Amino acid sequence: MLKGNMLIAHGGGPTPVINSSLLGAVREAKNHPEIERIYGARFGAEGILAGDLIDLGAVEDEKLDLLARTPASAIGSCRRKLTDADYPAVLECFKKFNIRYFFYNGGNDSMDTCNKVYNLAVDSGYELRVIGIPKTIDNDLAVTDHCPGFGSAAKYASVSTLDLAQDAAALPIHVVVMELMGRNAGWITAASALFSELMPCEHLVYLPETDFNKDGFLAAVKEKWAKGRGLLVTVSEGIHYAGGAPVADSGIVDGFGHRVPGGAAQTLSDMIMAETGIKSRSEKPGLLGRVSVALMSEIDRDEAELAGTVAVRSAVEGRTGYMVGFETRREPEYKSETILVPLAEVANAEKTFPLEWITPGGVTDEFRRYCLPLIGGYDTRFVSLRQAGL
Amino acid sequence: MLKGNMLIAHGGGPTPVINSSLLGAVREAKNHPEIERIYGARFGAEGILAGDLIDLGAVEDEKLDLLARTPASAIGSCRRKLTDADYPAVLECFKKFNIRYFFYNGGNDSMDTCNKVYNLAVDSGYELRVIGIPKTIDNDLAVTDHCPGFGSAAKYASVSTLDLAQDAAALPIHVVVMELMGRNAGWITAASALFSELMPCEHLVYLPETDFNKDGFLAAVKEKWAKGRGLLVTVSEGIHYAGGAPVADSGIVDGFGHRVPGGAAQTLSDMIMAETGIKSRSEKPGLLGRVSVALMSEIDRDEAELAGTVAVRSAVEGRTGYMVGFETRREPEYKSETILVPLAEVANAEKTFPLEWITPGGVTDEFRRYCLPLIGGYDTRFVSLRQAGL
Repeated sequence: MLKGNMLIAHGGGPTPVINSSLLGAVREAKNHPEIERIYGARFGAEGILAGDLIDLGAVEDEKLDLLARTPASAIGSCRRKLTDADYPAVLECFKKFNIRYFFYNGGNDSMDTCNKVYNLAVDSGYELRVIGIPKTIDNDLAVTDHCPGFGSAAKYASVSTLDLAQDAAALPIHVVVMELMGRNAGWITAASALFSELMPCEHLVYLPETDFNKDGFLAAVKEKWAKGRGLLVTVSEGIHYAGGAPVADSGIVDGFGHRVPGGAAQTLSDMIMAETGIKSRSEKPGLLGRVSVALMSEIDRDEAELAGTVAVRSAVEGRTGYMVGFETRREPEYKSETILVPLAEVANAEKTFPLEWITPGGVTDEFRRYCLPLIGGYDTRFVSLRQAGL
Repeated sequence: MLKGNMLIAHGGGPTPVINSSLLGAVREAKNHPEIERIYGARFGAEGILAGDLIDLGAVEDEKLDLLARTPASAIGSCRRKLTDADYPAVLECFKKFNIRYFFYNGGNDSMDTCNKVYNLAVDSGYELRVIGIPKTIDNDLAVTDHCPGFGSAAKYASVSTLDLAQDAAALPIHVVVMELMGRNAGWITAASALFSELMPCEHLVYLPETDFNKDGFLAAVKEKWAKGRGLLVTVSEGIHYAGGAPVADSGIVDGFGHRVPGGAAQTLSDMIMAETGIKSRSEKPGLLGRVSVALMSEIDRDEAELAGTVAVRSAVEGRTGYMVGFETRREPEYKSETILVPLAEVANAEKTFPLEWITPGGVTDEFRRYCLPLIGGYDTRFVSLRQAGL
């Protein structure tokens, strides 16, 4: 039995359910007397480096329970990626606070960090159990069937598309273009096609896994628009031309040296108006796609909590150097089980959207079968009236 | 007793609850045998001019009920404003289909049309009862305390702001700027400040009722950002400089000769980065702010249905030339009653946001007392944890 304190930290962009993983981890830790104190790092790696920890064990259960319906990160997060020069300070923080259990909740960058912390502890002979908790709306972590956070982002994308399609069909005076998150991976944008058979208007979908072809796009827009049912285009923020040049580039470079995207939807909307004369407008919910409480997927929330629970339980049982993942079957009914994946297998690996699931302007039914259970159900009856021929 | 058929039409941009007014009108009409057939105009005025009517009386009750959870217009809408040259064709359609009850569901443009149809019937000696049903997310109709559609748009704006604020506070690496609908009236953007006391980050609000001052804006951004809690800016799409020049202008003119807005949020975000060096990003939910089923206000939905019911009941009772409005008290508890407002008083009148409710970068509590009941409640407990000092 390894006695000592526990530290949990969040890395990268939040999801609607990352706090549910936090809830699961803290609840589980309270069951194990060998975990003496339960700390959270304020603003992720920044908090570890600064020794700025929050005593989560002191939070009353009633307040802790509210984590299950709180979007974003209740303990803060950051985008700072730890470098080799930072690791001595990390070890110093662990020693100072007698951290023996470390949990890092994040995406592939964070799993790389998590793996390095694991190796650091091994190399330093510092006894530490390290488990990664998966989190990303982008669904781009390797090995695991899917990631906590994606189900809710997919629900937001699919339901927003269905809502917006009613408007596009009811007032077909413009092509509506909606931008969804996902710079390199098209999983979220693909989810916009989840209810294709219920769409009251035409629909085109563009993911970053294939090259964007302007002529093909404009031809498809003209063909779909001509049907007179209205047209909604959903597009990933990261679409690019052959060769990799982004479709939308604001020309601005931010303080970190990153080029700032110019808005793919606005760019396509301008393109449609300039090249076809058809009126168009754009919507970019942006970060709203990763914070909606109203459209949180319950199954996603439950799995996020389970991932936190299993991470702590596994560490207490002696496991270290793993990330919690999910092995899932969808037939005859959805059933998901946690697995432990060696951190080295997920660190920095990226699972993009399968090319064979992409069709011209859309996605295959195979993807729909994959994704539909993850959104945790949605009452789509509201389109029935239009389907009744009104 | 005036025997004949009824026609209901939708005008302008849809709301999440316009179909509830349709439901109320059709349900009520079924109670009155003097209304023989119940028609809906397909795509609003376009359907009237083309004689393209839908037999709503033939729709089964079970399907009709789904209107209560269907966003946008189930019978279609249009932006065509009828001109003097069109009115003979309108009268021809009424005569052809023996329309004796006419209901137009729309905003101030539509109420002007409704008033003209009323005068046309009087002048032509054609016996017709005309009642307007109020509908606009913009809340800019005169006389009535508020408009069906606004409560749901306000709920979307306020809840989205609260959700987004969690993200801005959790990962304070950029100023987040969100654009909300309302070209001339700031009601919706004002609703983004409804939960100000629960905001985990700093917040600035800009409405189109006052001139946008660039220097003042940048100074406010720098001051708020310096507090280190994150910053969310919510801004109306229609903000403009002194003299009226829009802050955001894409330079594009669409097929109708209208200048296309360039995205106020994106423009402010670029401005922040260029002038202060602080990283910034923008979100523009756009039309999503008027279609969300998940964030539909129940009180708004119920009042929308009531407006449709009262419109038909009033017409059957012999009233004509009115719009249904709401007279509302908020103390000791919310209570709203329908009134009939002469169409001439609302036609083309515009109720912008009261200047005395605007504070530098925000709104007064008086507005919050006005608006809060209209969103029909929202469980805001999810911010408690952060408030607990985590």
